[in-house]
Amino acid sequence: MSAEDELIARYFRPLANHPGAFGLADDAAAITPPAGHDLVLKTDGLIGGVHFFPDDPADGVARKALRVNLSDLVAKGAVPLGFLLAIALPRDFSENWLAAFTRGLGEDADAYKCPLLGGDTDSTPGPISISIAAFGSLPSGTMVRRSGATTGDRVFATGTFGDAALGLRMQQDPAVADVWKLDAAMRDYLVARYRVPQPRMALAELLRANAAAAMDVSDGLAGDLGKLCRASGVSAEIDIARVPLSPAAARALAADPALIEPILTGGEDYEILGAMTPDCIDDFRAAARRHGVAVTDIGRMVEGDAAPRFLGRDGRPLSFARPGYSHF
Amino acid sequence: MSAEDELIARYFRPLANHPGAFGLADDAAAITPPAGHDLVLKTDGLIGGVHFFPDDPADGVARKALRVNLSDLVAKGAVPLGFLLAIALPRDFSENWLAAFTRGLGEDADAYKCPLLGGDTDSTPGPISISIAAFGSLPSGTMVRRSGATTGDRVFATGTFGDAALGLRMQQDPAVADVWKLDAAMRDYLVARYRVPQPRMALAELLRANAAAAMDVSDGLAGDLGKLCRASGVSAEIDIARVPLSPAAARALAADPALIEPILTGGEDYEILGAMTPDCIDDFRAAARRHGVAVTDIGRMVEGDAAPRFLGRDGRPLSFARPGYSHF
Repeated sequence: MSAEDELIARYFRPLANHPGAFGLADDAAAITPPAGHDLVLKTDGLIGGVHFFPDDPADGVARKALRVNLSDLVAKGAVPLGFLLAIALPRDFSENWLAAFTRGLGEDADAYKCPLLGGDTDSTPGPISISIAAFGSLPSGTMVRRSGATTGDRVFATGTFGDAALGLRMQQDPAVADVWKLDAAMRDYLVARYRVPQPRMALAELLRANAAAAMDVSDGLAGDLGKLCRASGVSAEIDIARVPLSPAAARALAADPALIEPILTGGEDYEILGAMTPDCIDDFRAAARRHGVAVTDIGRMVEGDAAPRFLGRDGRPLSFARPGYSHF
Repeated sequence: MSAEDELIARYFRPLANHPGAFGLADDAAAITPPAGHDLVLKTDGLIGGVHFFPDDPADGVARKALRVNLSDLVAKGAVPLGFLLAIALPRDFSENWLAAFTRGLGEDADAYKCPLLGGDTDSTPGPISISIAAFGSLPSGTMVRRSGATTGDRVFATGTFGDAALGLRMQQDPAVADVWKLDAAMRDYLVARYRVPQPRMALAELLRANAAAAMDVSDGLAGDLGKLCRASGVSAEIDIARVPLSPAAARALAADPALIEPILTGGEDYEILGAMTPDCIDDFRAAARRHGVAVTDIGRMVEGDAAPRFLGRDGRPLSFARPGYSHF
């Protein structure tokens, strides 16, 4: 066996426990999709120095790489079937790093019932690069689109916003934690939210049953809501005071009110944002809570094609320097 | 729209002409797999400086990125359904490069009826990195495995071997073309074989009907045949004189007989290698020829677990310094 084959056998084969992965000993994987179901397909990548720091724990990097894809699947109402992994490693990569990476990946694959089906391992002169393609399924024709929102719908969001953006700032400049008056637990919380998102997998069926439109928020609440509005041909009004914040983000915002911009635009929240008719929202919130997921009603869809407006307590809209994250 | 959204709209959206791609304006794609069929899944990546040269024509890089995946699908007997693309570009990438890349990708997606379903665009501090995940389908349970070969089977191969390995050497050191006594057309041919493989898509159904085992040859004939033999629990004897060579490779080999090693081990052939019972092979060859694909009978599967032997005209086995390509 070559060194590459040995790496695959030692670190990746133990994760390939789905029979259709053929123990990574064939050219491709095969799965039998459930009858009467559509496949939902998503790819998202992480690059060292862009999406994670070189010294971030490797098991968390793996979890993030898988979870950012799972977050998209669940936002569409899909249940995971499995994933493919393409990873490029520098020639001097550490086996300890790979061991921790594959341990985290395997634990998440088990926890989310989303097995590794196949992959590709390359060397690169650049940073570590991880691309995952994840597949889910849902009853045919039931994918929750971005484009289904209509005027009068309520805008809902899971979890809390801004944690990852603040966690990233703290990783870049640890001194801000003192400015923000955060205790140690709050610092750890925000960094953890940046490093390892929490996809809201329990909501897949509830979203299919209730949501008119939904998406996962990866590039910031303001920018992603703009995308959902454009796809749906509506605009939106959000009450900033209703946007859910963690205790840590709330304390940071109290110390520095200018943080409202990164909280609403910073990205990497990996929460679900969507729209539904007003008569659905209370039952949806109650059912989501039974699954351990907080859902908040943050505003309403309105007529027009203007960018969504984020309204302060005085009813005046906030204007953003940069409404969403862009790689270029 | 952000600069990233504009890039996607200008260069990638025109390729996403499958209805389930939703014009790349949703979080995920959705496809309805054909009833009674399995999905076959494959991911393979290309990295600048590793799998292609920075000044290789961008449309060819795109074709290669898609075709290396299609080659795996067809080797398994699958017909393409579509693909996902994750691409990471340096911040100073040229739009001309991207325009040519997406033109080549779109032409191949149309030619191979394998539409772009979704993707992810990132920036990277490293070289251009392209990961494609491709999906195909075939009647349930009919995937052609690596593991089905048995003693007495004939070993077959499509096309010709060593062209890409010689083309790569010529790109690294153009002076070897004179040593090898190649004319201009032969030089161009070998470089083209390295840059843009020719997946044997016409053979999917014939492989399902005839092959006991098959795989695509990406890491060299010797090494990949070893993998097929290990998966099948057999060994093999190949007559080196029967391994099909292009006129260009044959001329180079005549000038430098030591080239037999890179021809048999160099990789990137993207031909199909497999095994079938002796009574199938003549009909299979004739049918493949009607589809424009040359198939050659290069040897036989034999008992044992030894590495496959490549026999010279004197019946003595060749020994290789390095039987296959490894990234590490």
